[in-house]
Amino acid sequence: VPRTPERPRGCGVVTLLTDFGLDGHHAGVLHGVILGVNPAARVVDLSHGVPPGDLAHAAWSLLWSRRFFPPGTVHVAVVDPGVGTPRRAVAASAGGQLFVGPDNGVLSFALADAGDARAVSLPVSAGPGISATFHGRDVFAPAAARLSLGTPLARLGPPLADVVRLPRPIAARRPDGAVAGEIVAVDRWGNLVTSVTADDLRRAGMGPGSVVRVGRRVIRGLRRCYGEVAPGEAAALVNSNGHLEIAVNRGRADERFAAGRGTAAVVSRR
Amino acid sequence: VPRTPERPRGCGVVTLLTDFGLDGHHAGVLHGVILGVNPAARVVDLSHGVPPGDLAHAAWSLLWSRRFFPPGTVHVAVVDPGVGTPRRAVAASAGGQLFVGPDNGVLSFALADAGDARAVSLPVSAGPGISATFHGRDVFAPAAARLSLGTPLARLGPPLADVVRLPRPIAARRPDGAVAGEIVAVDRWGNLVTSVTADDLRRAGMGPGSVVRVGRRVIRGLRRCYGEVAPGEAAALVNSNGHLEIAVNRGRADERFAAGRGTAAVVSRR
Amino acid sequence: VPRTPERPRGCGVVTLLTDFGLDGHHAGVLHGVILGVNPAARVVDLSHGVPPGDLAHAAWSLLWSRRFFPPGTVHVAVVDPGVGTPRRAVAASAGGQLFVGPDNGVLSFALADAGDARAVSLPVSAGPGISATFHGRDVFAPAAARLSLGTPLARLGPPLADVVRLPRPIAARRPDGAVAGEIVAVDRWGNLVTSVTADDLRRAGMGPGSVVRVGRRVIRGLRRCYGEVAPGEAAALVNSNGHLEIAVNRGRADERFAAGRGTAAVVSRR
Repeated sequence: VPRTPERPRGCGVVTLLTDFGLDGHHAGVLHGVILGVNPAARVVDLSHGVPPGDLAHAAWSLLWSRRFFPPGTVHVAVVDPGVGTPRRAVAASAGGQLFVGPDNGVLSFALADAGDARAVSLPVSAGPGISATFHGRDVFAPAAARLSLGTPLARLGPPLADVVRLPRPIAARRPDGAVAGEIVAVDRWGNLVTSVTADDLRRAGMGPGSVVRVGRRVIRGLRRCYGEVAPGEAAALVNSNGHLEIAVNRGRADERFAAGRGTAAVVSRR
Repeated sequence: VPRTPERPRGCGVVTLLTDFGLDGHHAGVLHGVILGVNPAARVVDLSHGVPPGDLAHAAWSLLWSRRFFPPGTVHVAVVDPGVGTPRRAVAASAGGQLFVGPDNGVLSFALADAGDARAVSLPVSAGPGISATFHGRDVFAPAAARLSLGTPLARLGPPLADVVRLPRPIAARRPDGAVAGEIVAVDRWGNLVTSVTADDLRRAGMGPGSVVRVGRRVIRGLRRCYGEVAPGEAAALVNSNGHLEIAVNRGRADERFAAGRGTAAVVSRR
Repeated sequence: VPRTPERPRGCGVVTLLTDFGLDGHHAGVLHGVILGVNPAARVVDLSHGVPPGDLAHAAWSLLWSRRFFPPGTVHVAVVDPGVGTPRRAVAASAGGQLFVGPDNGVLSFALADAGDARAVSLPVSAGPGISATFHGRDVFAPAAARLSLGTPLARLGPPLADVVRLPRPIAARRPDGAVAGEIVAVDRWGNLVTSVTADDLRRAGMGPGSVVRVGRRVIRGLRRCYGEVAPGEAAALVNSNGHLEIAVNRGRADERFAAGRGTAAVVSRR
């Protein structure tokens, strides 16, 4: 795994993405475990607010975040409804970063995006010190800490060829030239993030005059930012992660359009 | 900007104050951007719980927090409903610390309080790598990281003389000697923080026997701490930021007094 | 206090456990105070989501977290409804770690568990710079920062022999051989954590065929993990902190069983 020259060995960044919430001590304990193994690690809470068990939410978050972290960063994602069952545990390298989590697809968008993923299977012994219900603490955090110290991936377990992949909605070009996608995420402000990317729009020749249909509602024009429309008005724009998004300036698009994950979003020339 | 001698160059503290919430990956990504530029920065989440778009909430929080951070700290405040519009971006030094954010007033209480503010205008090019909707990630975090490395403020942009100021409620002395202010913040416990400061009270000769009126309700006496009144009783006291506050011991003053931001709060001798 | 050899003096971990929530700047300010005293401290948010004033919640969290942090860690717990009243402030060492907080029992489960606790009374002068309402910022964080620098405990104040202890529910063996406990915590997923420990179960000869009664409801069998029962089914298992827990796989046990803290939980052979 490549490392930036200015980052001394062992001072790497470790990010945490979980559905633990912040009301309990579960997220904080991960910091303790990591700092116990690697006192110089920089542990960053990417988010602990993944809706409980929501693998797709976490997979998108990781995909959209990873490129803003330095080379060598170790990303830990623990959304793990199957903890303690025979589901496998995985550590992987991809795109110059490292990834650790349950083998249930939570890492798969990020791994697929990087293109050069290599994975190993983390041993999950049920021995002393390994609970059957908190592998974030007992399996994933220790593995991440070791990786942040520079331990080679291959040292953590045998190669794993068939990492579980989560189905990923991808926009499709329709015969009439339209780009047909769907809403894949709703953010804190009620903005509707679609599976349609800036690349999809470019390839289909869409531009400022294009029209977006969300369910049965129509939004005319592609904007550049929320403030380009008056407060209370809807805007379709390419968001900061390169995805088409439908927003209401200073309002909530999810409520306005009664839309959520899975709702169809179609872009056409007019 | 002065730095403490024991803090080596580049190890500075960077604080983050946003309305991003913690459920998404937006706050976490700022850590990644900053650590990518300055691997030794100490990034502190001041809060990501500013109500969406609430500039005054953030401006007060920054004002009340800054003096508890070391010299040289870089404070990033991103409450930015106008992102992508021609609003300016600003970096400033004041009181031995540095401040970065949109030029919409969010920094203005802290800058005014320090008295010696100098500001520059951050360039916001719409080039590659700069989104039109997430300047926290693409403009403010990188600027803060550079400042935390010791880059001089003047290197970040041309001087900016007329930083936008947010209107700041200040208590007034009435002809009858009373101090007339208003509620400017409600905290997590339902405590009502007013614009009346300890200085205002001292100058007006208020003391333990003074009387506070919130809307039409009366609280008799100024206390020193919540526990000085019985559980369920209301207390008026000077809070830890030097502002008059109305609280209900182990209860919620906002509900008891049906009061919120903007409600009048008047202190008189009797 | 023992320190790991690889952790240089002053780079110690400081954890924060409070009921401040994350919407205000109160939690963030603690980081600033600590980094102002010890720029090399690693400050970890254990949680700021303790329900307001809930001492037992915080005491259990600290007990269940401490062993996952490195030797020399300084734990700060601020759940402090009596702030400003004559309640004492305490710093203590126990089990190779350090603890700081109000002397109201919030530290007592962790101190009792370690067995070798020594405590001192922190002076709480009402002088300048010490508010009467925010000792987390003005008393506890500075004391913790000094301890993290290696300042000996005895330097912080005179010995304190009679630290306040919170009543701690402990399971009891009944004449008929059953283990009678109660629910002591409900976590984010609605899981019901009981006062019955793995040791209690072992000593009473309980095993996979045992039966748990929560209020009037019966759960048959002790499981190893949530996924051992079908989604929607209830499972009793020993959780990752060694306590008997009642869960509903992908559901909420607190709602299913209309149970909460204080509800009886009894384990019997059949």
